[in-house]
Amino acid sequence: MSLHLIIGDKLYSSWSLRGALALDLTGAPYTEELIKLNQPDTRERLLKHSPTGKVPLLKTEHGTIADSLAIAEYLAERFPDANLWPKDVCARAQARSACAQMHAGFFAMRGNMPFDLSRDAPLSPVPADVQADIERMYALWAECRAVATESGPYLFGRATLADAFFAPIAVRLRTYQVKLSAADEAYVQTIYQWPAFKAWQKAGLEEIKR
Amino acid sequence: MSLHLIIGDKLYSSWSLRGALALDLTGAPYTEELIKLNQPDTRERLLKHSPTGKVPLLKTEHGTIADSLAIAEYLAERFPDANLWPKDVCARAQARSACAQMHAGFFAMRGNMPFDLSRDAPLSPVPADVQADIERMYALWAECRAVATESGPYLFGRATLADAFFAPIAVRLRTYQVKLSAADEAYVQTIYQWPAFKAWQKAGLEEIKR
Repeated sequence: MSLHLIIGDKLYSSWSLRGALALDLTGAPYTEELIKLNQPDTRERLLKHSPTGKVPLLKTEHGTIADSLAIAEYLAERFPDANLWPKDVCARAQARSACAQMHAGFFAMRGNMPFDLSRDAPLSPVPADVQADIERMYALWAECRAVATESGPYLFGRATLADAFFAPIAVRLRTYQVKLSAADEAYVQTIYQWPAFKAWQKAGLEEIKR
Repeated sequence: MSLHLIIGDKLYSSWSLRGALALDLTGAPYTEELIKLNQPDTRERLLKHSPTGKVPLLKTEHGTIADSLAIAEYLAERFPDANLWPKDVCARAQARSACAQMHAGFFAMRGNMPFDLSRDAPLSPVPADVQADIERMYALWAECRAVATESGPYLFGRATLADAFFAPIAVRLRTYQVKLSAADEAYVQTIYQWPAFKAWQKAGLEEIKR
């Protein structure tokens, strides 16, 4: 068994963070390789690993898997005892739906609030489409909590792939100083206390000093 | 057991087609409800079913599932004997990666070559980013065929969820009269001969007459 995760800068690569958190949920050891983004040789280096030219990538004994959501499903299937998705079938369906919506949507938020772990300033003004994305996000999180059957402070109680997918949103909400409801603020705090996230954040902030 | 699929116009809704083909692969009976897109009451009607305001939606005994990829995974899990994904783990990982790339990419092709079953005219000129998407698509299909272990004319041999996801691309390539290699032309032909696709196409073309 071998798992090798290829990521971009921890400071900036929100999709890489999703891959790393998904791997952390498995509890399995893995190695990591960082390819600095936005460098003259970035694309060439990425294409050596995958024709997608994107991160994250997971190299496995079953081939190189491109895309965070495909990586998530591969890991969920390969580590069934780790229950990467919620155990309850209704909650699991909602978790997958939420992650798929994240995967293919929220473009206004993603485009106008780029992921940067070191940021600490509001977006001003907040465009209407960004505000709509933020409000849809709150609703989506509430939909997840409403069907959760396990206990804990994460979206479905216990930490699952859904939290891996929404951790970068928690970062955006905090680093852009978005005012939150008590429930959403508690969730953002939960993400910031997640040991795997804290380790990533620390490494990301250290990238600035280099 | 109850499965109710909510779709948009068959003529135009490529994501709805993906949902319908995924359901067809299960062999299970289901009911269908069409909400005409781009009408004054479209959004209101969609919001009655899901806060996403998008199609497809699958209503199940485990809740309403939004997003074609979440629908696909729900069905794959619920109908294990139908083997909606390739049976081989390497092929399955590649199939999921390919679908995820489709789900969150190919925006130039999607934006410039909107899905319309009735179209029969080239895109002229073909913008460079669209051409790049088309060429990446060919490569992605070749990557799928390279790891297929089952026999048949579909991407992984037997028809799988990957074909449900790429059928709308076959439609675009044909309706925009894109010149194809023999292998890709054969694949497009395979999609056009897929009974579930043919039924959808027929119904879509009949929508014009109404």
